[in-house]
Amino acid sequence: MDKHSDTITIGLQIEDIAFQVGEFSITLNDSGMESLLRDPDTSLCDSTEAEDKYENIHSSHIFGSSSSLAEDKTHPANDKSPLRPKSPGGSFDPPGCLEKYVGIVTLPNQVQQKAVKKGFVFNLMVVGESGLGKSTLVNSLFHTNLYMDRCMPGVSEKIARTVSVTKNTIDIVEEGVNLRLTVIDTPGFGDAINNHESWKAAVHYVDQEMEKYRKNEIGLNRKNITDNRVHCCLYFISPHGHGLKPIDVNFMKALDQKVNIVPVLAKADSLTPKETSNMKAKILSEIDKFKIRIFQVSECDTYNEDLFKQQTLEIKRSIPFAVIGSSTVVERNGRRVRARVYPWGTVEVENPSHSDFVHLRNMLIRTHMQDLIHTTHYVLYENYRINSLCRNPFLENV
Amino acid sequence: MDKHSDTITIGLQIEDIAFQVGEFSITLNDSGMESLLRDPDTSLCDSTEAEDKYENIHSSHIFGSSSSLAEDKTHPANDKSPLRPKSPGGSFDPPGCLEKYVGIVTLPNQVQQKAVKKGFVFNLMVVGESGLGKSTLVNSLFHTNLYMDRCMPGVSEKIARTVSVTKNTIDIVEEGVNLRLTVIDTPGFGDAINNHESWKAAVHYVDQEMEKYRKNEIGLNRKNITDNRVHCCLYFISPHGHGLKPIDVNFMKALDQKVNIVPVLAKADSLTPKETSNMKAKILSEIDKFKIRIFQVSECDTYNEDLFKQQTLEIKRSIPFAVIGSSTVVERNGRRVRARVYPWGTVEVENPSHSDFVHLRNMLIRTHMQDLIHTTHYVLYENYRINSLCRNPFLENV
Repeated sequence: MDKHSDTITIGLQIEDIAFQVGEFSITLNDSGMESLLRDPDTSLCDSTEAEDKYENIHSSHIFGSSSSLAEDKTHPANDKSPLRPKSPGGSFDPPGCLEKYVGIVTLPNQVQQKAVKKGFVFNLMVVGESGLGKSTLVNSLFHTNLYMDRCMPGVSEKIARTVSVTKNTIDIVEEGVNLRLTVIDTPGFGDAINNHESWKAAVHYVDQEMEKYRKNEIGLNRKNITDNRVHCCLYFISPHGHGLKPIDVNFMKALDQKVNIVPVLAKADSLTPKETSNMKAKILSEIDKFKIRIFQVSECDTYNEDLFKQQTLEIKRSIPFAVIGSSTVVERNGRRVRARVYPWGTVEVENPSHSDFVHLRNMLIRTHMQDLIHTTHYVLYENYRINSLCRNPFLENV
Repeated sequence: MDKHSDTITIGLQIEDIAFQVGEFSITLNDSGMESLLRDPDTSLCDSTEAEDKYENIHSSHIFGSSSSLAEDKTHPANDKSPLRPKSPGGSFDPPGCLEKYVGIVTLPNQVQQKAVKKGFVFNLMVVGESGLGKSTLVNSLFHTNLYMDRCMPGVSEKIARTVSVTKNTIDIVEEGVNLRLTVIDTPGFGDAINNHESWKAAVHYVDQEMEKYRKNEIGLNRKNITDNRVHCCLYFISPHGHGLKPIDVNFMKALDQKVNIVPVLAKADSLTPKETSNMKAKILSEIDKFKIRIFQVSECDTYNEDLFKQQTLEIKRSIPFAVIGSSTVVERNGRRVRARVYPWGTVEVENPSHSDFVHLRNMLIRTHMQDLIHTTHYVLYENYRINSLCRNPFLENV
């Protein structure tokens, strides 16, 4: 933001507006705002009748640029050394660029400052059979330790229990940037003998939060709406099946229009590279066959940096991410890394040749978190809202 | 964004969720989403009856941090030199900070990129008697030349004409940042013999755009809503009156709950510094007396840069901005500056000791444009929306 612009492109569009006073008074009275506008103490007009029956609209069709300014030269004699303060968002009037620099370049900074001040919210759902390393992966991704005093249920408890929903919220602050992360878990999913409708708890949760948001959004007080909608669902696929299981297809089909599903191939350290690539191909072909909508990483724009383009390509190639999580830290070449230590070697979580963990983390946090939030709000929530509207057709013209 | 975090603050909040399957199936059926969820081809469950009558909720009361990770040391022998790609938003895994850096710091960048991609929209209304330099000021502020082929109406035309609304849109691009600026003018304002209700065209325009936005927002397709709401109204006060005129009070009272009013003391080069400060004090006391709400520059946060704080203070002190506009460019000390050349000296538009132009421009574009947009959306538009809702009480519980 310290540089000035070398080029300003200016184009002009003119829109004509036409209305009549007659219409307009009716609108004003209808709107009931009249009482707000007039303060008897300050109403300085004594006539109550509008004298101008019609308001005419003039539109100027002009195409201009700053280059047509009149020029004039004077002696620089009486110059009283103008003080030129700097703009916080950029340099104020770079010398010699008087007619070029407006200050539009400060706008992204202004937006950024507002966003940082407000803080970020991300709601992540993790779904998968127990034992696939969901908690460990979340802990590895966010360097935290959720579920620290979790009690593992015995098999007798598992027989009795049903699918539930738990929700943990954690605030992460890095260099003044605040993220409120909520991890939504569905313990018990896929554990029963008959897993019929075991995805319903997740579906219900997603729908319920969409509905809460919708009600808040059309309600009277929406200044402090918190966004509890699920922005992403990490779906854990077992490495031991041959592709997807029926329950996987069932779950993903039930939620794919409601939430961004990111499939992960769990515990990938039990698969050789060849087995991993075969398993990924199988999973992708089944996702395609059953027309399951998973989160799509958007194409890069031409102006994106090469590094970003390369990373996006790697992310796209890695789907479904074959991941390994670990809460064990070992020292490797003087660095402390998360790893799993086997007698035959050490699996490093963040080593891209060992797993897709870094690609998943890049996508989920460092490059596409805003995309996930954006897609949830502008696509998935919009679909939900439109469906709600269509069920209440009388509301359309309110 | 190149540095890693030195500190991570982690706090935990746990929220319990409780619902019953009974309720939830009803909600699901009510929501009508059932048909979307089930694809007969992929519905792999043959039973139609939910077996789990109640879904139990487990909530884990956990307070964790990353410091409790198990540690383990191995020989760095078989290290296969992990490739560590860099994140576009910041460095990937700064050495030695494994347990510190999550990547939250990239989020402001992600938001910024999205904002730049979308582009910015700003709608500025200028109101004041003709001849107060409205067009010249706008041209000076944005280094453009709106109204290039404008025809000045003669007095006979002025007698006949009424207050109208014109709208010019211009795209300004600076270093890839795009601003779509719309300038809304109300030619004819204050020109008639009887100016009763001459502010109504402006009021109607502001209301009309609010209403259009509201209808769009609750409508079926809101993906491409353009924001035509007026974000700021520059109100030009004549330097020749003794403070505010009745029409000024009337206009500002009519619009102060609907739009951010920024009062400017026009053509300030006809006032000596002392006259300017007297006039400003008079205007401010009258604004206070009539309880007119003008745009308030918010207080700085403690973490803001000193430069920003100083500029904000200068902006606050300058209200109502005493401004001078000029489309004449002269050379002063090798710099080309906009100025007005009198036989007794040259008035430089951007010289802070000559006028408040730079403070107005700083506020309007470089430091507070997002604040103006924000206030319009979250305060003024919310008030409008709530008033609309309250007039349709049956809608509240939709």
